[in-house]
Amino acid sequence: MKRVFSGARPTGKQHLGNYLGAIQNYVRLQAEYQCVYCIVDLHALTTLEDTRDLKQNIRDMALDWLAAGLEPQKSIIFVQSHVPEVTELHVLFSMITPLSWLMRVPTFKEKAKSQPHNVNYGLVGYPVLMTADITLYKAEVVPVGEDQIPHLELAREIVRRFNTLFGYVFPEPEAKLTTFPIVLGLDGKEKMSKTAGNVIELALSPEELTEKIKTAVTDTARVFRRDVGHPEVCNIYRFHKYFNPSQSDEIAQQCRTAQIGCVDCKTVIAREINNALAPFRQHRAEFAARKGYVEEVLADGARRAQAIASETIREAKEKMGLL
Amino acid sequence: MKRVFSGARPTGKQHLGNYLGAIQNYVRLQAEYQCVYCIVDLHALTTLEDTRDLKQNIRDMALDWLAAGLEPQKSIIFVQSHVPEVTELHVLFSMITPLSWLMRVPTFKEKAKSQPHNVNYGLVGYPVLMTADITLYKAEVVPVGEDQIPHLELAREIVRRFNTLFGYVFPEPEAKLTTFPIVLGLDGKEKMSKTAGNVIELALSPEELTEKIKTAVTDTARVFRRDVGHPEVCNIYRFHKYFNPSQSDEIAQQCRTAQIGCVDCKTVIAREINNALAPFRQHRAEFAARKGYVEEVLADGARRAQAIASETIREAKEKMGLL
Repeated sequence: MKRVFSGARPTGKQHLGNYLGAIQNYVRLQAEYQCVYCIVDLHALTTLEDTRDLKQNIRDMALDWLAAGLEPQKSIIFVQSHVPEVTELHVLFSMITPLSWLMRVPTFKEKAKSQPHNVNYGLVGYPVLMTADITLYKAEVVPVGEDQIPHLELAREIVRRFNTLFGYVFPEPEAKLTTFPIVLGLDGKEKMSKTAGNVIELALSPEELTEKIKTAVTDTARVFRRDVGHPEVCNIYRFHKYFNPSQSDEIAQQCRTAQIGCVDCKTVIAREINNALAPFRQHRAEFAARKGYVEEVLADGARRAQAIASETIREAKEKMGLL
Repeated sequence: MKRVFSGARPTGKQHLGNYLGAIQNYVRLQAEYQCVYCIVDLHALTTLEDTRDLKQNIRDMALDWLAAGLEPQKSIIFVQSHVPEVTELHVLFSMITPLSWLMRVPTFKEKAKSQPHNVNYGLVGYPVLMTADITLYKAEVVPVGEDQIPHLELAREIVRRFNTLFGYVFPEPEAKLTTFPIVLGLDGKEKMSKTAGNVIELALSPEELTEKIKTAVTDTARVFRRDVGHPEVCNIYRFHKYFNPSQSDEIAQQCRTAQIGCVDCKTVIAREINNALAPFRQHRAEFAARKGYVEEVLADGARRAQAIASETIREAKEKMGLL
């Protein structure tokens, strides 16, 4: 089995966007790969000025991952900073990564623009730390969206340079291009995200979820019940596609002809989402009730990750002449 | 006792310039401070493209330090990369260090000019790693030359920022301004350094040293034995100041009046330096003969350094909300 690595920032309780975008994919990959899933708290620090919620966010995210079907017996699930070897490899890679490579990374330019008061050294080095994340576990495959391709190409360049300068240690990680559906938030405008404040959390109770759905913006052109709707621009209709695919054509037809109103339509989709999330909720309640369970999973993950990491770092240091 | 930290790049066998500049000062500081002396191999990587000699250079430097009087019972003598906590702290500090602070450091600008093909990410972060070096041991005092003042000021700024953002962990390190004599090399022009190829190694035998001294450029205006000399521009005369101070006025007088020739003058100073280095040589031979001694000293130093480092890193991570 090839090894997959993927990292995600600790954003706390996961929402439908995370679920449809990343988590479902994580769950699926477990069947085909040895998966290493990392909660990248150090990466979070590149843009985080207030770290008070960091620990809770890590815990909440891990709990949601487990409830959604990440299996700690199969996959390595851990927190980045718990395996400090990554910082060692980061420093080693930083010696062979030209600054110019980093300055031209599109996401760096964007972030530098969006937080001009906080362009820190760590922000520039983001792709170097990402390279260390992947290669510390000698991962061969990295699931990425289109926008992450430049980062992975940079990682491959760093790896090639290391292997050429000091001798072969790291496989070149391959991108597994993955289409992540863009899930819009309750506002129907922006991508669902905690910062946009438009999320539907997985951990909501069925009643809470139904209430949330009721507040969702739909087709703004449809003002009255008698107006016909335009499912292709309706945010809620997208959820029918994801969670109610067998009925979605029918729903679209009823909306276009004003046979069904937004309230009815929302009632249907809330029920469908609640059905889909029922096993998640059951697992979540169960895991949350087992005191210390999440912490144990993460500690065990860190141990298993470190066993691989310490071997890799020894090899890298030896090749570099440090050992 | 306050704690001193100082780091030096692994340059291999030490020479008279190192001895008069840094090592003698290191030896003296041991009487007044708890000293932490670090061979900074990671720093060396910022400008090193070939690392084949790294290990040997570390060993040679450590042996010379010990022979010169660094006492491993008293001081902590170790190799930077053996205590990987420094890379952890480096990454943490990198999140609060503005890139702009680093880009305006004079030594970065110089290095970027002198090695334009190798301006790597690690080179920019040099002062961040240096800050991590110092603060990992909560050192209060750092002996620095005038040219190092900007680096230490930057370290203090990073420390202040950390303490303000997350709560007090690190004392602000104070500069102990030290005048390091500039020792010229055998060419009488450039500062004595391995790269300039003009060094007199401490490890030379008395005979070898005498031969080396014979090749030294003196006062170039003095062509014949009968010409009067100009001790103030003579490289060898400087050595009289350091190693033969009681006779140096007399020597100067004899040179200015051509009573003494360069060959005689060199014979005198070679003898004086050899006398001064006699205990060094004896210790060096003794330590070199004890198989594994240097390695043991460095391993013990790393253990003691790590005991402090792991406590500091725990504290820093806790304050940042990572633990």
